[in-house]
Amino acid sequence: MNTDATAPIKTTIPQTRIEPATLDDLPMMVDLVMELFSIEEDFQPNRALQEKGLRLIVEQPSRGRIFVARTDYEILGMVNCLFTISTAMGGFVVLLEDVIVHPDFRRQGVGTHLIDYVISYAKKKDFKRITLLTDKISEESQHFFENMGFDYSSMIPMRLSVDT
Amino acid sequence: MNTDATAPIKTTIPQTRIEPATLDDLPMMVDLVMELFSIEEDFQPNRALQEKGLRLIVEQPSRGRIFVARTDYEILGMVNCLFTISTAMGGFVVLLEDVIVHPDFRRQGVGTHLIDYVISYAKKKDFKRITLLTDKISEESQHFFENMGFDYSSMIPMRLSVDT
Repeated sequence: MNTDATAPIKTTIPQTRIEPATLDDLPMMVDLVMELFSIEEDFQPNRALQEKGLRLIVEQPSRGRIFVARTDYEILGMVNCLFTISTAMGGFVVLLEDVIVHPDFRRQGVGTHLIDYVISYAKKKDFKRITLLTDKISEESQHFFENMGFDYSSMIPMRLSVDT
Repeated sequence: MNTDATAPIKTTIPQTRIEPATLDDLPMMVDLVMELFSIEEDFQPNRALQEKGLRLIVEQPSRGRIFVARTDYEILGMVNCLFTISTAMGGFVVLLEDVIVHPDFRRQGVGTHLIDYVISYAKKKDFKRITLLTDKISEESQHFFENMGFDYSSMIPMRLSVDT
């Protein structure tokens, strides 16, 4: 147990491995995403919608990949990597969403492990950029992503919900 | 000619139509995107990269659609609609990038025409949300998108360029 809160956190939970999520992981991923959305300002959690979105990604690997950190028993955390094209970068880029570590497994390096994995994956697959598109995140989270090499951009995202 | 600067601009250039871009439109779209990037803070224009990115989208309609506003003679403007999946909305969403009106045809309603078209398209195709992902835009541009129904979100985008 790490009792020094200021020390860099490098330990990971033994036997942790990172793998692409499968449909079997859906219920636990829905729980994780719903918990995230319950603390985000712009969203109301909705089990049916979250499951639908997650399922679409798992079923269409050309659209993206959800990676989970797991032991033999549990899912410790997840990241959602969506694939799109950038006219600025001239190639495929990753939109990183839903970066979530289960509350029971925080401050044990799971997030770092996941993001390191995503960066290696992006390099290997020749993605040109990773853009973090999460909602208002805590200062602690921003600091985490800065430590992982992410910079602020001057983008001003605006949204329009489409009523059908 | 509209001489009242405060009046809503509703005129459009006669014979304007909006169509999906084709590979024949690439050179003119590259010019438009390069001009945009030359005024954006985060990007350096690069003809080869911009052409590569635009070509990838035109050649893979499952990834997105570029719409151009054109007459028989010229391209007046363009918008780049990328398709991805939202776990929050539980379905497909549009990322709107590269909203550009040619300098010779500004203040004649071309942008409004293009964005109206995109909103109708998104409704028809059951996209759940449109997120504008352009870089730091002028107050005038922000006002334009607000008028079109776009809201600010609390997202804080962060980026990491991937060195391969």
